[in-house]
Amino acid sequence: MYIGLDVGGTKITAGLADARGEILQRETSKTAPNVLEQISALIQKFSAGQKIAKIGVGLPGQLKNGVAINMPNVPQLNGVDLLAELNKIYPAEYVIENDANAAALAELKYGAGRNYKNFIYVTISTGVGGGIIIDGHLYTGANGTAGEFGHTVLLPDGPPCNCGNRGCWEALGSGTALAKMAAAAVAENSGTRIKELAKDNRITAEIVVEAAKLEDQIALELLDKNGYYNALGIANLVNTFDPEVIIIGGGVTFNGDYFFQPLFKSLKTFKLLNPEQSIKILRAECGKDTGLLGAVALALP
Amino acid sequence: MYIGLDVGGTKITAGLADARGEILQRETSKTAPNVLEQISALIQKFSAGQKIAKIGVGLPGQLKNGVAINMPNVPQLNGVDLLAELNKIYPAEYVIENDANAAALAELKYGAGRNYKNFIYVTISTGVGGGIIIDGHLYTGANGTAGEFGHTVLLPDGPPCNCGNRGCWEALGSGTALAKMAAAAVAENSGTRIKELAKDNRITAEIVVEAAKLEDQIALELLDKNGYYNALGIANLVNTFDPEVIIIGGGVTFNGDYFFQPLFKSLKTFKLLNPEQSIKILRAECGKDTGLLGAVALALP
Repeated sequence: MYIGLDVGGTKITAGLADARGEILQRETSKTAPNVLEQISALIQKFSAGQKIAKIGVGLPGQLKNGVAINMPNVPQLNGVDLLAELNKIYPAEYVIENDANAAALAELKYGAGRNYKNFIYVTISTGVGGGIIIDGHLYTGANGTAGEFGHTVLLPDGPPCNCGNRGCWEALGSGTALAKMAAAAVAENSGTRIKELAKDNRITAEIVVEAAKLEDQIALELLDKNGYYNALGIANLVNTFDPEVIIIGGGVTFNGDYFFQPLFKSLKTFKLLNPEQSIKILRAECGKDTGLLGAVALALP
Repeated sequence: MYIGLDVGGTKITAGLADARGEILQRETSKTAPNVLEQISALIQKFSAGQKIAKIGVGLPGQLKNGVAINMPNVPQLNGVDLLAELNKIYPAEYVIENDANAAALAELKYGAGRNYKNFIYVTISTGVGGGIIIDGHLYTGANGTAGEFGHTVLLPDGPPCNCGNRGCWEALGSGTALAKMAAAAVAENSGTRIKELAKDNRITAEIVVEAAKLEDQIALELLDKNGYYNALGIANLVNTFDPEVIIIGGGVTFNGDYFFQPLFKSLKTFKLLNPEQSIKILRAECGKDTGLLGAVALALP
């Protein structure tokens, strides 16, 4: 049996799966200040009476050899040697990975990537992240930090990114970036319905989509711009990796055509150097289960 | 024994190597209109009295399953099914690859990459190309066109690139791009020595370096700008691949510190997300032999 643990900033989901990856049991709880104790309790519970072959753990941030080196949303884990601590709590074989990498594996084993061996997974939500599947395996780089597409620079003089660069994909194409651009547009244009739709003046990507549904021109232009930047990032990935397909997941994609149509339109304007001169874009299929399925996929044989 | 064939727009070099990759015999001739016949003669000559295990062929352009699909510098091969034609001429096991990919293998087997298993090779000369080494193997993508870093867009409103995009790395950081920027700078500034150094008004990257050696301010600024764009491209590669090292080769790098120092200076200004937050840049070691060594490396066991 295999355990998957999806550790997020707000909640932790644990799952027990068989060797084929079928989830037999699952449990979600709010992330506690003492995450390690919480994980320990979940592992104890799920392993009771079972022989556990491997445990996969997905976390939002960067890891090196099992040490959390950059974990802004679970700050209590920053600097913690997770691999060592988890082995103290429950000695087992652990695979600890960045959650975007785990999500790529979730799509490979359970989702849109199950018929492919070489693809790039991109997650677009509050941030932009990714995972690289090469020959049916997750590629994590020399130190485990490969796939940080969100911090490739697409516009050198663009808006500042949390990472310290300017004009990163994340600062241009994420839901957060869309909301920021919308706030700036509202300040400049009185004629947009974004302002009236925003409760307490809190402008989000979802509000922009709501306004677009009402055919608000400013909202449609903002989604076009957002789609353009995401298309640019994707075009660069195609010319870099020559993947079979690109799989896009993350919260922003739940906006469906309002997200994808502008992206498809802009993608046609970039020259792709693969023989087809085009790329198949698939929507991620694991949806809200991505975290848990990814964590389980890390553990599976 | 192994044969390597480096087919270029101006010359073809063939080499015979043993299983350890030692070059025992080599020959260079001008590229003929009938390249296939020329290749045939070289293979016949090198295979006489030898048992040939494999033949590697490096070509400047894009291939799919042994078919030359985009070969601007050897136009007589465009559309030719090289794998089929070569097998008619001399039945053998062939590995046919883009020359930048072959160059990455040359560095892996003979050069700066021999102690690494995960690195990115970038060649900067008239164009910008690259090769991806993952776990000690060349990664060429789903269709053989991975590694076209030169056509990742770094400046969406930048100068047009031959490929059809605007602001590709190649259109910003190559020797050709430097020469074009220098020509524009000369037209605007009478006070640069680039103009007097350029014979017949032909401004090249080398002329810019010559002027920089005379401490010409415009030339130094141009090299800074060129280094900035190359650093930007490299920063994006680091955040994408998390490689152990980046190896840089190609004609422009023969300008040594005049090329590398501005690049190193700019690279420090980008946030790299690997644990070290920095990347080791190595100079390619195969130099003018890269083409032949790459072709041989394609064939080696």
